[in-house]
Amino acid sequence: MIVTHTQNLLKIGTRGKSLYDITRQVEAIVAQSNTKVGLCTLFLRHSSASLIIQENADPDVLADLETFFAKLVPENGRDYRHSNEGADDMPAHIRTALTKTSENIPIANGRLALGTWQGIYIWEHRSLGRTREVLVHISGN
Amino acid sequence: MIVTHTQNLLKIGTRGKSLYDITRQVEAIVAQSNTKVGLCTLFLRHSSASLIIQENADPDVLADLETFFAKLVPENGRDYRHSNEGADDMPAHIRTALTKTSENIPIANGRLALGTWQGIYIWEHRSLGRTREVLVHISGN
Amino acid sequence: MIVTHTQNLLKIGTRGKSLYDITRQVEAIVAQSNTKVGLCTLFLRHSSASLIIQENADPDVLADLETFFAKLVPENGRDYRHSNEGADDMPAHIRTALTKTSENIPIANGRLALGTWQGIYIWEHRSLGRTREVLVHISGN
Repeated sequence: MIVTHTQNLLKIGTRGKSLYDITRQVEAIVAQSNTKVGLCTLFLRHSSASLIIQENADPDVLADLETFFAKLVPENGRDYRHSNEGADDMPAHIRTALTKTSENIPIANGRLALGTWQGIYIWEHRSLGRTREVLVHISGN
Repeated sequence: MIVTHTQNLLKIGTRGKSLYDITRQVEAIVAQSNTKVGLCTLFLRHSSASLIIQENADPDVLADLETFFAKLVPENGRDYRHSNEGADDMPAHIRTALTKTSENIPIANGRLALGTWQGIYIWEHRSLGRTREVLVHISGN
Repeated sequence: MIVTHTQNLLKIGTRGKSLYDITRQVEAIVAQSNTKVGLCTLFLRHSSASLIIQENADPDVLADLETFFAKLVPENGRDYRHSNEGADDMPAHIRTALTKTSENIPIANGRLALGTWQGIYIWEHRSLGRTREVLVHISGN
């Protein structure tokens, strides 16, 4: 059994501030890779959006996360020097700093070893929709 | 020297909101794996508890971390839509979002390459005790 | 093509609270490793400083991040039990808990697969300068 490293680029269209479930897309890439035991590392190629693993059962959890972060990091131009890209841009960078740019999920028996209640999300922190790129890196055998 | 991937499941009983040191348990798994140079990736299979690397010398640091997070993310049902699992559940998800679900520690000379003052902790964010699962993934040779 | 694991220790001198760009130093280590496809994992061996990937274009973003965190985690001895290492020490641990100790960046075509606007930073959370150690772990082929 030889360990290999493979990479796939996932492009996700977002429609403003919210969490977007990408669990199925990542699972599909893991299945295609034929990796039985390994590590799946996700890397988001942006600094105004995040990767996060969260509860996958109640959509209210996602709404409450968004509400909490909007309050914790207010859009108020007076607070920030960096304001020329819009009132939502500097808060987006701060929200990214408070969350994650990369995540790791082990692969066991050919599947992501997520807990029962865990899903993988892109968290868009900008007000307008964008195409976000996640590099899915798989090592294992 | 052939690179391999191995996995062990660590089950930790918690007794309410606090940080629980798991450094020794992870060190023992690394030692048993006989990995000399590699990477240890920890993955917590829950969305209401965290993994965190923190100061291992003064227990007051851990108490202050808990106090700060309790204040930053208050238990107040009025703030949250998701309240049917108890006043501590939605705050637990937010505290998880603000901290980590996975961590990486390189292995050098057969040991975790932690700094002198670093310990590995599970941070329980729920009020009641639970069994928490950490998947310890080791790649290397 | 055989997968290998290699490690380099990067020592960075900081001069107080601020973000320090280490992208070039990490890129140089990746180039020297001759890894074409792989994963670069950074591990900071401290609990009062962080690793973070952030916007690399406007220095005001870095200044605003520092301002936001200074306000979110005030230096006020009364709030903390752990105060014997200075008013900035416990806030430094909290700021570390809110950010990252390790980061992963995939390597593609022999280079870090960072987005156009992403840079890698050490975030010093203590008031005085220090030497900070980042272990640069590369796996791949």
